Amino acid sequence: MKEALKRKISALRRGELSEKGLLSFLENFPFSDERSIKLDFHRRLRRGIPEVIFGQGKSPEQLRRIIGKFSEMGEDLLITRVDAGRFAELKKEFPSLCYHDAARIVTCGRRPVETHKGRVLVLSAGASDERVAEEAYVSSRYLGNRTDREYDVGIACLARVLSLRARLNRATVIIAVAGMEGALPSVVAGLTSTPVIAVPTSVGYGANFYGLSALLSMLNSCAGGISVVNIDNGFGAAYQATLINRKLS
Amino acid sequence: MKEALKRKISALRRGELSEKGLLSFLENFPFSDERSIKLDFHRRLRRGIPEVIFGQGKSPEQLRRIIGKFSEMGEDLLITRVDAGRFAELKKEFPSLCYHDAARIVTCGRRPVETHKGRVLVLSAGASDERVAEEAYVSSRYLGNRTDREYDVGIACLARVLSLRARLNRATVIIAVAGMEGALPSVVAGLTSTPVIAVPTSVGYGANFYGLSALLSMLNSCAGGISVVNIDNGFGAAYQATLINRKLS
Amino acid sequence: MKEALKRKISALRRGELSEKGLLSFLENFPFSDERSIKLDFHRRLRRGIPEVIFGQGKSPEQLRRIIGKFSEMGEDLLITRVDAGRFAELKKEFPSLCYHDAARIVTCGRRPVETHKGRVLVLSAGASDERVAEEAYVSSRYLGNRTDREYDVGIACLARVLSLRARLNRATVIIAVAGMEGALPSVVAGLTSTPVIAVPTSVGYGANFYGLSALLSMLNSCAGGISVVNIDNGFGAAYQATLINRKLS
Amino acid sequence: MKEALKRKISALRRGELSEKGLLSFLENFPFSDERSIKLDFHRRLRRGIPEVIFGQGKSPEQLRRIIGKFSEMGEDLLITRVDAGRFAELKKEFPSLCYHDAARIVTCGRRPVETHKGRVLVLSAGASDERVAEEAYVSSRYLGNRTDREYDVGIACLARVLSLRARLNRATVIIAVAGMEGALPSVVAGLTSTPVIAVPTSVGYGANFYGLSALLSMLNSCAGGISVVNIDNGFGAAYQATLINRKLS
Amino acid sequence: MKEALKRKISALRRGELSEKGLLSFLENFPFSDERSIKLDFHRRLRRGIPEVIFGQGKSPEQLRRIIGKFSEMGEDLLITRVDAGRFAELKKEFPSLCYHDAARIVTCGRRPVETHKGRVLVLSAGASDERVAEEAYVSSRYLGNRTDREYDVGIACLARVLSLRARLNRATVIIAVAGMEGALPSVVAGLTSTPVIAVPTSVGYGANFYGLSALLSMLNSCAGGISVVNIDNGFGAAYQATLINRKLS
Amino acid sequence: MKEALKRKISALRRGELSEKGLLSFLENFPFSDERSIKLDFHRRLRRGIPEVIFGQGKSPEQLRRIIGKFSEMGEDLLITRVDAGRFAELKKEFPSLCYHDAARIVTCGRRPVETHKGRVLVLSAGASDERVAEEAYVSSRYLGNRTDREYDVGIACLARVLSLRARLNRATVIIAVAGMEGALPSVVAGLTSTPVIAVPTSVGYGANFYGLSALLSMLNSCAGGISVVNIDNGFGAAYQATLINRKLS
Amino acid sequence: MKEALKRKISALRRGELSEKGLLSFLENFPFSDERSIKLDFHRRLRRGIPEVIFGQGKSPEQLRRIIGKFSEMGEDLLITRVDAGRFAELKKEFPSLCYHDAARIVTCGRRPVETHKGRVLVLSAGASDERVAEEAYVSSRYLGNRTDREYDVGIACLARVLSLRARLNRATVIIAVAGMEGALPSVVAGLTSTPVIAVPTSVGYGANFYGLSALLSMLNSCAGGISVVNIDNGFGAAYQATLINRKLS
Amino acid sequence: MKEALKRKISALRRGELSEKGLLSFLENFPFSDERSIKLDFHRRLRRGIPEVIFGQGKSPEQLRRIIGKFSEMGEDLLITRVDAGRFAELKKEFPSLCYHDAARIVTCGRRPVETHKGRVLVLSAGASDERVAEEAYVSSRYLGNRTDREYDVGIACLARVLSLRARLNRATVIIAVAGMEGALPSVVAGLTSTPVIAVPTSVGYGANFYGLSALLSMLNSCAGGISVVNIDNGFGAAYQATLINRKLS
Repeated sequence: MKEALKRKISALRRGELSEKGLLSFLENFPFSDERSIKLDFHRRLRRGIPEVIFGQGKSPEQLRRIIGKFSEMGEDLLITRVDAGRFAELKKEFPSLCYHDAARIVTCGRRPVETHKGRVLVLSAGASDERVAEEAYVSSRYLGNRTDREYDVGIACLARVLSLRARLNRATVIIAVAGMEGALPSVVAGLTSTPVIAVPTSVGYGANFYGLSALLSMLNSCAGGISVVNIDNGFGAAYQATLINRKLS
Repeated sequence: MKEALKRKISALRRGELSEKGLLSFLENFPFSDERSIKLDFHRRLRRGIPEVIFGQGKSPEQLRRIIGKFSEMGEDLLITRVDAGRFAELKKEFPSLCYHDAARIVTCGRRPVETHKGRVLVLSAGASDERVAEEAYVSSRYLGNRTDREYDVGIACLARVLSLRARLNRATVIIAVAGMEGALPSVVAGLTSTPVIAVPTSVGYGANFYGLSALLSMLNSCAGGISVVNIDNGFGAAYQATLINRKLS
Repeated sequence: MKEALKRKISALRRGELSEKGLLSFLENFPFSDERSIKLDFHRRLRRGIPEVIFGQGKSPEQLRRIIGKFSEMGEDLLITRVDAGRFAELKKEFPSLCYHDAARIVTCGRRPVETHKGRVLVLSAGASDERVAEEAYVSSRYLGNRTDREYDVGIACLARVLSLRARLNRATVIIAVAGMEGALPSVVAGLTSTPVIAVPTSVGYGANFYGLSALLSMLNSCAGGISVVNIDNGFGAAYQATLINRKLS
Repeated sequence: MKEALKRKISALRRGELSEKGLLSFLENFPFSDERSIKLDFHRRLRRGIPEVIFGQGKSPEQLRRIIGKFSEMGEDLLITRVDAGRFAELKKEFPSLCYHDAARIVTCGRRPVETHKGRVLVLSAGASDERVAEEAYVSSRYLGNRTDREYDVGIACLARVLSLRARLNRATVIIAVAGMEGALPSVVAGLTSTPVIAVPTSVGYGANFYGLSALLSMLNSCAGGISVVNIDNGFGAAYQATLINRKLS
Repeated sequence: MKEALKRKISALRRGELSEKGLLSFLENFPFSDERSIKLDFHRRLRRGIPEVIFGQGKSPEQLRRIIGKFSEMGEDLLITRVDAGRFAELKKEFPSLCYHDAARIVTCGRRPVETHKGRVLVLSAGASDERVAEEAYVSSRYLGNRTDREYDVGIACLARVLSLRARLNRATVIIAVAGMEGALPSVVAGLTSTPVIAVPTSVGYGANFYGLSALLSMLNSCAGGISVVNIDNGFGAAYQATLINRKLS
Repeated sequence: MKEALKRKISALRRGELSEKGLLSFLENFPFSDERSIKLDFHRRLRRGIPEVIFGQGKSPEQLRRIIGKFSEMGEDLLITRVDAGRFAELKKEFPSLCYHDAARIVTCGRRPVETHKGRVLVLSAGASDERVAEEAYVSSRYLGNRTDREYDVGIACLARVLSLRARLNRATVIIAVAGMEGALPSVVAGLTSTPVIAVPTSVGYGANFYGLSALLSMLNSCAGGISVVNIDNGFGAAYQATLINRKLS
Repeated sequence: MKEALKRKISALRRGELSEKGLLSFLENFPFSDERSIKLDFHRRLRRGIPEVIFGQGKSPEQLRRIIGKFSEMGEDLLITRVDAGRFAELKKEFPSLCYHDAARIVTCGRRPVETHKGRVLVLSAGASDERVAEEAYVSSRYLGNRTDREYDVGIACLARVLSLRARLNRATVIIAVAGMEGALPSVVAGLTSTPVIAVPTSVGYGANFYGLSALLSMLNSCAGGISVVNIDNGFGAAYQATLINRKLS
Repeated sequence: MKEALKRKISALRRGELSEKGLLSFLENFPFSDERSIKLDFHRRLRRGIPEVIFGQGKSPEQLRRIIGKFSEMGEDLLITRVDAGRFAELKKEFPSLCYHDAARIVTCGRRPVETHKGRVLVLSAGASDERVAEEAYVSSRYLGNRTDREYDVGIACLARVLSLRARLNRATVIIAVAGMEGALPSVVAGLTSTPVIAVPTSVGYGANFYGLSALLSMLNSCAGGISVVNIDNGFGAAYQATLINRKLS
């Protein structure tokens, strides 16, 4: 693309193109724009962040094609929402893949390095929220954050949360994962001034409505300092935490 | 109705009615049934409980007619959801009415007596839940319960709830009123083994959806020992608490 | 924890710690708090109540770990929402486990003892609500309540409910389980002054919306004396009934 | 339109139009169709049924125009959902209009005549459902049905409904109006084999959601013999009852 | 029960019981009431109507028990929502059972007789609504109605409905089954003055939301003369039609 | 902006800027991009299309500022959703404004010219849908379409729609506006192969849920050839019709 | 049908039928109407459009019957929503069927011909939207449109969309397929004045609610020129595009 | 409270209290806990943050009481959601109050100081989102952040957002406010690696459902780096941004 532009500019210099001609060429030149975004995009992703693929809803065929490309290029890769069965099949073809069981995450290549200054603390309310919490935890480490976790600290036993107060304050970002009534982020935000990213989970039954209950709780929290990502979106929380942490450096 | 029945029985005794005749009369005698329910109903309501009228949705005309009847009969009366304006008009006609401002309740006649053994503790999460909490408090006292209240103890400042632990345990029933994320009942139920009746309020904004957020939170609480009444239904909670307390006597 | 505190106090007495030093130590002493909650929590659960585990959403792995711990410690245990298949597998490893088929509950160890004074009466509207009703019934007995049940007393045939009036009044708490239009609790509450805990079930079809229909009915009941737990939450109702009954003792 | 058709047919007879020409004319003759529907429609409405206008959402201007046309033509007219204020204005211009206050219905012209054989019985659950019940009652009478009403027979006091059993059976159609938990139609259908048309009302508060609660209850009724019309649609129920009654004649 | 009552009455005659004693006995005599309802209930069901069981949500065990009882008593029986697999198993044990494939209905015993005067016409909008329409059709015939059917007459090809006008008018009740946008009942009601019972089906996709789309359409129909039963509830519509037809006799 | 670019290009020609310098300038030149979009945007809007402002949610202050700017520049302007009161105030300040009463639209300046080849036909189902239909009609004419309208052709009287068949086919685009059950677009699409843009309106009551009923109907239509715009969005439909018509030229 | 009509007309000519007799015959002659619609319907479908069958919800039995009829008549056929398994079975019986894997479409007979002037451009936001996009693409080609596609141009990387601007303007209709937040159509409509038909997909997770999120986004787009079809309805969009394109010819 | 504790400790030192006595005093000393939270809470709020009161749902009486207390104590104060009328009344009593008109915020006392290192950039999509954006802007400045704003940069004209790229990257946190389809945060997050806090607004009409449309869009964004606060919660976003910025210092 840049070549086309160069040629036009040379033509102008050589008098083969009028100024008006170049102007009109430029006004219809979306690619310069595209290029810069793409570069920017890529740069962003490469500053200590491996490529990330959402595995859910991708066919085995699509996954194979993607992994193939990346392993050819020698690039690191993180794939979310891959169940054990699908992983087993992929592993046959790509033996260098690793599986993070509880998190249902496949990674390829690099080991996590703590590239950012801040610390992320992943909390989960109950044993059943573990999958989502692990998705956040594994992702956060891969995205270069010094990451800690503390599970099963739900509000049915307040003492557990209360005992974490020092660690809550030490973290730069807290990721609080909870299903059912989703009260954990509210309680945590009431105890600390560290920003909380709340992850509602679809864990629960009855009038839980697939996580709607926890989602609404978190959005309506009377305790300030909470923002929310999508239901079960552990990766999304980790990604947001990473962007925050990178601003610290 | 009882008269009709009496006459039949007399007729039987006098031989004017066959046994079979009475039997068949009785089988088609819905009123005996109705009566007994009604008596039972009335008895229930009178065992230390004044008549209760839901004011909301009643026309001024309807209210006037109801109050008129009760004041003729010298009966006590509690009317919920009456705003100050409507009360002012009713007061002109029925000067003996009292108004409980924050609770929007009109009462007539008797002073609250503590007829039951148990204690009710009414908690509210925020200043904006006060109306509903007051509806519960005023109702609970009128229904004969020794009633306490502690407002503005929401989870944004956990210490307030934590400091109430002794009183939580002392109560027979706790009524926990909360809007927004509705986490108060969960926190309270995690701290005590006193049964909690949760009242979601429509207080909040945005994705609160008129109390749905708090309602779902309370239904989905991971802390055992919570049952829920309708949104803003302070009276309903007080009534349920009364029935529980009466079982203690 | 108490030891740490004792040491500090001794240090103060011996003059090794200033008053101010102790004060600041105390202000940052969350564990005293945590401890007391934990003890309180455990005490509560042990006062005649076995440990309760929600089986739903737990992996076989997680269940095995939990049961292992409890059977080591010789503690009683009740696990809800375990299907027959999962039970069969657990039984192999832990032969002392019992299965309550209709209730889908696994228990371990003790036989139910009636430790509380009150009586719980479990009602169900239709044959399809049996699972949830049984969850309430089996749980209620294990939690130490004298418990009765009467199934299939839905309002399509009012006579059945009407014939139970005496028993309704005798109970301390009624658990009324109903799907579809969920009218049973309203009818029951109209017939008695015993508090009713309503359990909506997801039984039904069409515009039932997984129990939403019954849930809304119960919340909106015009008959006083009803509070509601989550859809299908038979255990939750039994637990709430237990807390109420324990206040009688 | 008929004229056009007549002319064509005459032309055919006179040989001025070929058979094929008539055929093709007829195939493109939507009006013959329209006409017949219209006639049918009108005939239907006139067989003892005045014209009916939905007043809600009509501007005063639109109402004035409609009433004007009908009064010119000397036709009877029933307008639903007109509040007292709007009526007062219309009355000035059309002095022959009548207002049915509780039903918010305006009628013009004729007195109700019982033209059908059957009987309609309008029941309402609570005092606040009166408006909708009255809309059904007034409409049903105007549409030519022998109509009875019995209000405030909700299930909080079952005896009232039970005492109506004979009348329930005598009716050809029962219109059961209820808000809140909407259980009245279920109870009624359990007591009789008369078909029940259920009208949910938007009466209630909290998780009533503008009548959704009652609507879902009625649709999910486990008692057979209930069909449902829209929330607050008293007129719709009366209209359906009329069509049923007319089949009896 | 009747025996107890007889004894009391005899005692009264013999002077062993006072009138007051009998009165008080009667007031607490729910069973007289129950009995009469039950008889009434049974009478209703037997007037040309076989017993009906909702098969959905019943365990094979429960179905076996029910069918056993009825076949012992020699009673007719209709069971809805039984899939082919479950039927095959039941058939082994009860060889006299019949299966109505498209309707997923099991019947036992009697052949349909047209006991009522009226005629039911079952319409369906599309090929995918057939199951529900057949449930209505088979049920309606078993409940004793002269029943006709006309499928696939949806509004995408208006001519089909238009061609049925004469039959629409001839029917006493029309059952109109439709999924997706659910417009068939509206169109039908605009063409005839026969009452229409609308059955929304869960057929469709996307923003159909399991039949909600069709349900709302039918409830909001601007054409008078429509009442609605639950989503997919073909039997319910047939039952309502039967009750209407029986009023004709 | 263009000036800056011109200066750079001149500098290049004059040798004061290197090719590389211009290249890097261009890559960081978002405005060239913005400009081109803006020009494109403006060009699009000016090809026979006046500026359009959504009046709803704008403060009187904001509207005044916008109108002021446009009247200074002598540009045409169309403002939607302005009620009569707000218009009256604006009229005082800007006497050249026109008001389209039923459509609640304010226009300024030009008279509609039929600039496109196609024809738009606006249909409405009922008298209460008129506002939205008029918004579509007035907008469509202002956007340069030859526009026709036919109101009150809802499906309660099919003949009216049937009689329009020729006109349906003649139109390039049909805008079908309907509330309540929203069946008009389906019926229309079944009668013609002209594309239909469906506009659900919030007209109705009860389970209409502010237009949701009509919206879902239209999305779920089994008749092909319908696409849908937002509830009450008459302007949006007219705009889409305009874009379609412009493709004809 | 036409025969019956012909006979009547002949009878008239021969004097065997009075004019009045024919008139009354015609008024009750729905079939003439039906016929004309049917012809019109068929004509519409045949003008370059093969028959289309919705495969979803059809039993294998039903599909076999339909395909059989069409292949007997030698007609072309397109069936949507057929999974690979079902196709394999059908293929055995009808070897001439073709399968479009990604689109889940079965076709029979003809190859796509570009019969219309316009061009359709199918865009999809993400890899997971491919199925729906392919349904639109394959359908659009079969319906006779010159069709292009460009997938994976979602807004997470704006440059891709920006680079398409020329092609956006060249298309007559754009079909924009997107799940998750569904923003693609808004962005596209902001860049071009080509009409956009938006197809929300059910792709996503959490608070996506089966496509509701994308559906609402598209309906609420602030960019003019978007109309929406049902969730996942790729065929519907292609059909609407076809009707628009046919108006160009 | 601290005094009580001090006295006890002194008593211990003086030998007037046993160690055991102090221990038991401490275990029942909830206030130590409360205190520390409170202090922590207050400290948090005071580190450059004035007290914040949610004005919505507070009665004028309640507001007056709160402001009174704070002005006595000479504390700064920020009150959200106060309309102009209510402010005018408060101003009479407390002349030092300031009103931020567009933001509907009342402040008292201090001028904003930029105490944190980071920068907040507030973006809004449309003119109608201004209120919420201003609530975020005014709050953010009062909470001590260097804050910038750029309004009306919605995606209907992409160029405006594209032109902001440099400023997007410069900010530490972006607050993106949008109603309707809520696509702005997705587009912004696609252009930068600065974390985005998305604020859905209730601006829009039709199927906007009071902001639900924008809320779901934002939660489902396919662009990483977005977390969401409640609908219209401009203050909440500013508060979260402040907590993030404070981690930078």
